[in-house]
Amino acid sequence: MTFQRVAIIGLGLQGGSIGLAVQAYLPDVVTTGYDRDAITRTRAAERRLVHKVCDTAAEAVADCDLVIFCVPLGAMGIAAEQVRAALPADALVSDVGSSKQVVAKALGEALPDHVIIPAHPVAGTENSGADAGFAELFRNRWCIVTPPPQTNLVKLSQLVAFWEALGANVEIMDADHHDLVLAVTSHLPHLIAYTIVGTASDLEEVTQSEVIKYSAGGFRDFTRIAASDPTMWRDVFLSNRQAVLTMLQRFTEDLTALQRAIRIGDGETLFNHFARTRATRRSIIEEGQDDARPDFGRADHRADHRTDPKPADS
Amino acid sequence: MTFQRVAIIGLGLQGGSIGLAVQAYLPDVVTTGYDRDAITRTRAAERRLVHKVCDTAAEAVADCDLVIFCVPLGAMGIAAEQVRAALPADALVSDVGSSKQVVAKALGEALPDHVIIPAHPVAGTENSGADAGFAELFRNRWCIVTPPPQTNLVKLSQLVAFWEALGANVEIMDADHHDLVLAVTSHLPHLIAYTIVGTASDLEEVTQSEVIKYSAGGFRDFTRIAASDPTMWRDVFLSNRQAVLTMLQRFTEDLTALQRAIRIGDGETLFNHFARTRATRRSIIEEGQDDARPDFGRADHRADHRTDPKPADS
Repeated sequence: MTFQRVAIIGLGLQGGSIGLAVQAYLPDVVTTGYDRDAITRTRAAERRLVHKVCDTAAEAVADCDLVIFCVPLGAMGIAAEQVRAALPADALVSDVGSSKQVVAKALGEALPDHVIIPAHPVAGTENSGADAGFAELFRNRWCIVTPPPQTNLVKLSQLVAFWEALGANVEIMDADHHDLVLAVTSHLPHLIAYTIVGTASDLEEVTQSEVIKYSAGGFRDFTRIAASDPTMWRDVFLSNRQAVLTMLQRFTEDLTALQRAIRIGDGETLFNHFARTRATRRSIIEEGQDDARPDFGRADHRADHRTDPKPADS
Repeated sequence: MTFQRVAIIGLGLQGGSIGLAVQAYLPDVVTTGYDRDAITRTRAAERRLVHKVCDTAAEAVADCDLVIFCVPLGAMGIAAEQVRAALPADALVSDVGSSKQVVAKALGEALPDHVIIPAHPVAGTENSGADAGFAELFRNRWCIVTPPPQTNLVKLSQLVAFWEALGANVEIMDADHHDLVLAVTSHLPHLIAYTIVGTASDLEEVTQSEVIKYSAGGFRDFTRIAASDPTMWRDVFLSNRQAVLTMLQRFTEDLTALQRAIRIGDGETLFNHFARTRATRRSIIEEGQDDARPDFGRADHRADHRTDPKPADS
């Protein structure tokens, strides 16, 4: 590991998890951190998310050889400008934003003389803030690195090694392709989840209490990602607008086709559609990207003990 | 408990779980069962889902005082006709179907001389078949009972006591209101999940392998319920058509409004929408209808041990 001093700007779920993961897996690396919110800084210090929580962004980056911006997409440019004067000339600049073309542009404009290699760890939970991070967040998750053309290959390999040390699998991708892939695997699902939870809140015929009580029928699965940080997600949709709108158009076409099948009572179309989606989940579990236990393991957690009778065949 | 002999027709996730739950929580009650699929019958006997797996539905119900139909909605009428000749005159007839108006009609036509009280335990996992059931499925879940007008109150209270014995909380509701409530808390979420998983499978610009790899960004949450039994869900949408189409219309309106906000760059509308959906999840967790652990507890399961440094304040 060639990075000796890592500065983390933004100490929420991602920044805090990076700080904890570096301490856990790269114990020789010194970490500094900054968050523009004073309460977050205090809590970050209490939780020891980084070795040193600084009072300014400039102080946090003063001696670093890697700075990672872990702020909402809309704040990347401002955060980068705040460190410009203090950032060592040979420090590598990276981030964890969920949309990569816009980040490359914002960081490039603010820090035109630095090497910038954007990255996106595809890992998270619905929680946010200084209490949300944990060291294992990136283990067996993918981190997509989107180097611009003619990127310094030494710096690139150092960044790859850094993420691998934190437990991630690294993939290199063009920023525009990243934005299309994430539009379908992350941005569209969040938009849909936010929508349906809102729809359920606005009904007049069904009370909110009923929606809550009977949420185990499927609705509750959507509420998890609809509990994600609103600022972060506002910025994602504004930043990756075109790809999200493209995917949304496909989704709407497919939904309209199923709606028509329901309206005309076309059971065969419904069955055929529903039968082919099982394979996708099987693949996700085989690839280690989700829990194989039914109901995300919630049933295991709820049951204090299993009371099945002893099977006859074992 | 006044039921002494319970017959279960259909030994998949619901029927198998009822059989196991009765054995666990009502050990004096004798259970019989039947499934039209011979392999399911064999597996049900191996797992001892009920005390006796019968070769015909008529044999299973011959001496029962409660029969519960646990078959797809489209098969309720046929299953009921198959037991008509053998079913004792005073046996109570119930079911576990996800749509209640259509069940009341189908069972009423097939068994016009019996007392019929439909019910719907709002509990399940994405798994189906004889291997899917477990005794704790109904614990702290709601079971909605939809008695028709002028229902025999003694029978009704017996059915309520039965479900409470299995760990469920029981709610009494009109069948038409049930169908509206479930359209939003269960049927619409399943339709949306099936749609988005299908949309992601059909893309040309993004490979299936990429969809799988980066599914932790949110997509994987949808794949769980899109892995549910296709026959069951085809029948749900055909059975509860009107309520589903109504809810789908509301959802589409709301999605269109957010789509417009994205297109015109209206961050305030997006933020305000995203900020209000968190409260719904909080309520669901407070009501015990979902797991409070981040990421449905998947992160806990994945992490062999937590490696956080000792906090300074504790």
